[in-house]
Amino acid sequence: MTDRLIIFDTTLRDGEQSPGASMTKDEKLRIARQLERLRVDVIEAGFAASSNGDFECVKAIAEVIKDSTVCSLSRANDRDIARAAEALQGAARGRIHTFIATSPLHMEKKLRMTPDEVFEQARLAVRFARNLRDDIEFSAEDGYRSDIDFLARVCEAVIKEGATTINIPDTVGYAIPELYGHFIKTLREKVPNSDQAIWSVHCHNDLGMAVANSLAGVKLGGARQVECTINGLGERAGNCSLEEVVMAVKTRRDHFGLDVGIDTSQIVPASRMVSHTTGFVVQPNKAVVGANAFAHASGIHQDGVLKARDTYEIMRAEDVGWSANKIVLGKLSGRTAFKQRLQELGVVLESEGEVMAAFAKFKDLADRKSEIFDEDILALVSDESVTAEKEQYGFISLAQRSETGETPHAEIVFTIDGREVRGVSDGNGPVDASLKAIESQVSSGAEMVLYSVNAISGNTESQGEVTVRLQNSGRIVNGVGADPDIVVASAKAYLSALNKLHSKADRVAAQG
Amino acid sequence: MTDRLIIFDTTLRDGEQSPGASMTKDEKLRIARQLERLRVDVIEAGFAASSNGDFECVKAIAEVIKDSTVCSLSRANDRDIARAAEALQGAARGRIHTFIATSPLHMEKKLRMTPDEVFEQARLAVRFARNLRDDIEFSAEDGYRSDIDFLARVCEAVIKEGATTINIPDTVGYAIPELYGHFIKTLREKVPNSDQAIWSVHCHNDLGMAVANSLAGVKLGGARQVECTINGLGERAGNCSLEEVVMAVKTRRDHFGLDVGIDTSQIVPASRMVSHTTGFVVQPNKAVVGANAFAHASGIHQDGVLKARDTYEIMRAEDVGWSANKIVLGKLSGRTAFKQRLQELGVVLESEGEVMAAFAKFKDLADRKSEIFDEDILALVSDESVTAEKEQYGFISLAQRSETGETPHAEIVFTIDGREVRGVSDGNGPVDASLKAIESQVSSGAEMVLYSVNAISGNTESQGEVTVRLQNSGRIVNGVGADPDIVVASAKAYLSALNKLHSKADRVAAQG
Repeated sequence: MTDRLIIFDTTLRDGEQSPGASMTKDEKLRIARQLERLRVDVIEAGFAASSNGDFECVKAIAEVIKDSTVCSLSRANDRDIARAAEALQGAARGRIHTFIATSPLHMEKKLRMTPDEVFEQARLAVRFARNLRDDIEFSAEDGYRSDIDFLARVCEAVIKEGATTINIPDTVGYAIPELYGHFIKTLREKVPNSDQAIWSVHCHNDLGMAVANSLAGVKLGGARQVECTINGLGERAGNCSLEEVVMAVKTRRDHFGLDVGIDTSQIVPASRMVSHTTGFVVQPNKAVVGANAFAHASGIHQDGVLKARDTYEIMRAEDVGWSANKIVLGKLSGRTAFKQRLQELGVVLESEGEVMAAFAKFKDLADRKSEIFDEDILALVSDESVTAEKEQYGFISLAQRSETGETPHAEIVFTIDGREVRGVSDGNGPVDASLKAIESQVSSGAEMVLYSVNAISGNTESQGEVTVRLQNSGRIVNGVGADPDIVVASAKAYLSALNKLHSKADRVAAQG
Repeated sequence: MTDRLIIFDTTLRDGEQSPGASMTKDEKLRIARQLERLRVDVIEAGFAASSNGDFECVKAIAEVIKDSTVCSLSRANDRDIARAAEALQGAARGRIHTFIATSPLHMEKKLRMTPDEVFEQARLAVRFARNLRDDIEFSAEDGYRSDIDFLARVCEAVIKEGATTINIPDTVGYAIPELYGHFIKTLREKVPNSDQAIWSVHCHNDLGMAVANSLAGVKLGGARQVECTINGLGERAGNCSLEEVVMAVKTRRDHFGLDVGIDTSQIVPASRMVSHTTGFVVQPNKAVVGANAFAHASGIHQDGVLKARDTYEIMRAEDVGWSANKIVLGKLSGRTAFKQRLQELGVVLESEGEVMAAFAKFKDLADRKSEIFDEDILALVSDESVTAEKEQYGFISLAQRSETGETPHAEIVFTIDGREVRGVSDGNGPVDASLKAIESQVSSGAEMVLYSVNAISGNTESQGEVTVRLQNSGRIVNGVGADPDIVVASAKAYLSALNKLHSKADRVAAQG
């Protein structure tokens, strides 16, 4: 046991499993780099055996990330584990994370295995993994609802086989802090070799207590690793929020007495990047990263008086990366200033060609918009077309009109595999008409399950950032598009979603 | 002490203090009625002495709500308390809630009073209030950061004066569950007459632990009232979420052993009403009321297999008011069906005239849109123009166009105090042009701090719901507008925000 708390980020694995949050390889690489700048100890990059796409993502991240350990999830079987090890080959530090369910309900209904079979499979999986890598994490899925004596037997056995981290998830978000903390404590007492592994917590937020449960697992239970995600992204009500758990440990160091390695000034940039990439909005009253989280960041001074800040604020907005001065660049800014700002924002583009493409977009935007905000720049580089990936559909131009009493109408020109096509349609509104104009040429059969717009810098002079979520044959993707004209942004977002639908392969489901 | 947990909702008071969440009287009345259907025990309706507008809101709510206690906040002085009592005169059950800060920091920096002065003022305030009403709540602002012995002296004195509920807020969201629970327990032990009052908790979410802290105050500390808001609305990171705290107590009845009177099937309708009214989005991964909170509600069946539901879900979506079948009405639906659906959705319109106006809007919408969803109906009635309040600005018609390479252009006709005006403008996009066209005639000087759109039923055929947040001279308001054409919806939202800016009076700041 150490007095350092290990921060294990699973935004790219458990977070991405959230319906609609799937990301491309380039997006994952960009987020992984931001997580490295944030100084997370472990980045769970994906679930290598679940699909070829996931394998490639884990592999690519393992090859570029040097300061954080890169981890791949795998079920407790040799094929999955070998695949994870293969993906991690290029990693400076790599971890195989293997899991199997241990609760009566999951063993019976999902695995259709007896406890003895689960025990044996867990043991053999860790033994196999340990022959491939030194850093092995074992997770007991639905661990909190497991029989504690059975769970203790499993933990003891996998530690004996060489597991270095033992994770006890509250998979369904059922725990209460004092109960969960006590469970972890009792479990560790029941495992004779418990001191030979680091204990880890992984909590879901279904009852709104993921952060408190994780911290109880740490303070009362003695865990020294917390698994979490940026913005609390994750299935259902999501996972424990990285930003909340980190700021709680920092702000209440008097109580926890633990060090965390996180560079908190990278928290807000990370939050924005994940939100822009997935299209999952952060509600204004979200702790730490919500727009209202710090009163003075939203420009409010009640009674016109700036009271002593600590009267109402226990953290400083600057410490988590909120910056007051957000206007950064204009029409006359050159490429050096642009590149420097990208660096400050933590954006690393793959090649000089990508920087050139982003800069060209920046100049184009600056012609139409006098003040360029950080958000505009992040939107630029989040835009799919900056990245090198081959796209099936590409936007060229749009004309639309609507008038009270008339039917809205749109005409769009775009490319399909490089070939230029023109679509024309009426609709209920100009956005509807534009998307129908696209569908008149594409006939994707996709169902739209979400449409939302956020003005990137608050006002309508700025770019609108549109998120479109499409569902087709059980797959769900988000497309994001940005433009000062929100009808154009909508068309771009729709084409981006179609590109993702086209490129995403099916994959197997992982641990919840 | 009872084995019943009292749910005290402060959406209309602490929630409304969130910058941008201010509501009109009609909106507050509608939400108060929904809170009554939700069966909350106490509705904090406002802070009567803070402005004439707030006084009128508390008074109106006190007069119509019969099943819940109606409460007004007031500072600890005779004028505030008398004003609260006056506003509550028509209440079947009314409560005066008086507060003063007790932490060294707040006493010194905010109140500039000595502890003895605070002690005396608290005592006299409760004595005065108790002469006007039987049901008196006393709050020690920033109580959790107060000296516990001083706080105990204050609590003992105000109970002696007749306070029936004692509330100990964690005003700045600094608490940790076990510490807060222990604090409440120790405090109660230090107060000799503690058994003569009900103890209450009021937690803020700055570190993401408001729900867990509140429940620790209940379970470990012995509190029997929780103060909370719908969607966790509130300043900064907000308050304890009603939906989370209620579902935690219900789902983990094995641990808490407490009854709550809430009709949980009204939770999602309440969440939507508050979100529509304030324009504060609920993030998809929000517990209980987020769009992704229940996997099957978002139509996802991983692996195409519907697993035993309790494998991953600890609550049932139906129990909190998620309904699978959301298509409810169409073009041929009559007025009776419409009224019945309104009733089922918990919407009560003031007069037959309002029902007629809403039905006319419904028929108009049904002409343009084949399937009308619950959300469409809620948007219809949230639309300002249904309500009886006099509006300064009213939408008439809009024409706009944009085309790649051309400057977007809009022409709008609207009313100012009943007089028809026409505005014309170019802009960066069609929305920007439309709002500039309005400003060309209004010159409000307001700054836009937020612009967002949500398609009400997921796809672009449905209505777009636009939220516009304007700031002017320190006041912040949200306007909401809905229309299948999002440019029109944007113009409506902008006019609605201007109407609110026009009608909102300044008010004094209340307890955080």
